[in-house]
Amino acid sequence: MSEFIPPGTRFIDLPERFEMKRGGVLRDGRVAYETWGALNAARDNAVLILTGLSPDAHAAANGGNAEPGWWEGMLGPSKAIDTNHWFVVCVNSLGSCKGSTGPASLNPTTGEPYRLDFPELSVEDCADAAAHVVRALEIPQLACVIGNSMGGMVALAFLLRHPGIARAHINISGAARALPFSIAIRSLQREAIRLDPNWNGGRYDEHTYPESGMRMARKLGVITYRSALEWDGRFGRVRLDSDRADGDPFGLEFEVESYLEAHARRFVRRFDPNCYLYLSRSMDWFDIGDYAMHPGGNSDVDAGAGLALVKVERALAIGVQTDILFPLQQQQAIAEGLRIGGAHSRFLPLESPQGHDAFLVDIARFGPAVGGFLAELH
Amino acid sequence: MSEFIPPGTRFIDLPERFEMKRGGVLRDGRVAYETWGALNAARDNAVLILTGLSPDAHAAANGGNAEPGWWEGMLGPSKAIDTNHWFVVCVNSLGSCKGSTGPASLNPTTGEPYRLDFPELSVEDCADAAAHVVRALEIPQLACVIGNSMGGMVALAFLLRHPGIARAHINISGAARALPFSIAIRSLQREAIRLDPNWNGGRYDEHTYPESGMRMARKLGVITYRSALEWDGRFGRVRLDSDRADGDPFGLEFEVESYLEAHARRFVRRFDPNCYLYLSRSMDWFDIGDYAMHPGGNSDVDAGAGLALVKVERALAIGVQTDILFPLQQQQAIAEGLRIGGAHSRFLPLESPQGHDAFLVDIARFGPAVGGFLAELH
Repeated sequence: MSEFIPPGTRFIDLPERFEMKRGGVLRDGRVAYETWGALNAARDNAVLILTGLSPDAHAAANGGNAEPGWWEGMLGPSKAIDTNHWFVVCVNSLGSCKGSTGPASLNPTTGEPYRLDFPELSVEDCADAAAHVVRALEIPQLACVIGNSMGGMVALAFLLRHPGIARAHINISGAARALPFSIAIRSLQREAIRLDPNWNGGRYDEHTYPESGMRMARKLGVITYRSALEWDGRFGRVRLDSDRADGDPFGLEFEVESYLEAHARRFVRRFDPNCYLYLSRSMDWFDIGDYAMHPGGNSDVDAGAGLALVKVERALAIGVQTDILFPLQQQQAIAEGLRIGGAHSRFLPLESPQGHDAFLVDIARFGPAVGGFLAELH
Repeated sequence: MSEFIPPGTRFIDLPERFEMKRGGVLRDGRVAYETWGALNAARDNAVLILTGLSPDAHAAANGGNAEPGWWEGMLGPSKAIDTNHWFVVCVNSLGSCKGSTGPASLNPTTGEPYRLDFPELSVEDCADAAAHVVRALEIPQLACVIGNSMGGMVALAFLLRHPGIARAHINISGAARALPFSIAIRSLQREAIRLDPNWNGGRYDEHTYPESGMRMARKLGVITYRSALEWDGRFGRVRLDSDRADGDPFGLEFEVESYLEAHARRFVRRFDPNCYLYLSRSMDWFDIGDYAMHPGGNSDVDAGAGLALVKVERALAIGVQTDILFPLQQQQAIAEGLRIGGAHSRFLPLESPQGHDAFLVDIARFGPAVGGFLAELH
């Protein structure tokens, strides 16, 4: 699976025995990361980025890899996350297939890929692995941890389980717990992969690969990552030229179908299906209310109580109205919960039409929001 | 496929050659229907109900079938659609499998089911078949035509193509044209069915049946028919008892997953997959802007111009804020377009939390809205 790992990726070994939240032990694991800028003498200018489900650690071009990264517009010299000032670290999530250890990695005990023998992965394990990277880089305290989407969940677990690890936090289109609509979507994505006969209980190879299941899962993802509003303006009812339609009576006819198909085709061979299943399930399991001291069974209240246990000085929770997967109320709840916990905390709803993925593309709105918050930390 | 047809269903034969919008000809077709109440001497108290994609004509209990119907709370003596006053007709859509002729019906030319040899079906064909029923029942003019969801599209085509066929119209969670988000969802549902190896180009039988594809399609449907808000309150993060979970590491764990599974299992063997594909595609194709006299390429403007060609005296377009499939702006556009066409037309947004399917379950809100409008027609 090494073709998934961008050039220039660096690695930090996890402890020989890395204990996982749900009881498993990962042996000889590692975390992939990249950096931008330089750590200052006081070692107090580090910013950590925790990603959504699928990105690698290559958030932007750097000395090790000049290719643009997935957050190129946001990260670099004089950009919102200004690498002239900040030392930025981005980690690839534990359980992923972009360099960090996950179900597609070789199990040192057997010499074969883990596949479904990989230990059950939780958001907390991704957080603990990221905390290990911070310690290994000898960063006493991060200036800020930024988490996007799933990374927003990981960031909350990271702050809660490692008190004092960061002074500030930006939570972007994240959530303090998974809600049933997003659980339903992810469950259906996993079902699409598992129903593909080529998935074969996780024992596929590149020749018999669950390509159609992955394509379905990715298309459903893209539908929920964007918004109806954006698509009305972007695609409307425009049809494909007849030479691009596929001739099948139920095949591609509209531009929006072709867009989904192209997105899915780009993705399916670049992300390991078992890793996808593990990371997807970890999000369903996440509920910061599990940490509430006196859980009362009202999950809103419990999530608030869990959030209030997070200790951070300053926080910003950003969301967009058109996000159907991690709806705006979830970022509002994060800002409020962190405030109750003592943070100087702000909720910033943005008008981006692009839905959940707006942070990747609407740099015009997200840049000033993120850059303005970071500038206050100087 | 006769097990799909409720007892008590009646039938009206279509003309021996029924010409379809996209060029096909249907031979010896029929339309299934049921009725409630009695046609008065003036024959002016008839109300026609046009359904969403999947319902049969059994909207409520009647003399032919005492079982509750799919709109039982709305239709009956002293209910919102008061059968003491109105003679109500509900038709099963052309192309369906609940009694009307569709891809699962026998092709009289071959004696075999049509399957994919069924002519291309459009919303307009469903409308024309319903108009034939109205004429066959010797109803000179309907008091009102009510269309829900897909039936809202059919109703607009019905009014446009058969001027004067109804005095009034209630459009519930309908649309004047398909937009890319809903096209994307339906395209993915069709792909799920077509990817199931048992679909086999439409040549399945009850032993090799595309059950998993239909299950996926239905689950995605149910997700988009309801709303995140409703599910937060209804399911939250409640987990299944361990004896109801299926033991599979990626299997059912949360109540919301079990709910989807139960819904899907009830549906898969009760709706013909090819009929599903045909009806689903017909919605993608529908755009009342195609009828605009001078289409200008701006589909918002064209749809408005198409709607303004609809001649009806009074109209009510009802929608709900939580509908992600046929969003509220679409019902607002219907009300505005019909007003420009000369109707006394009103837009009524409701606060139902249940999303697109609210009209089926939120009788407390929809009953007074529908009943109040009908009472004004007495």
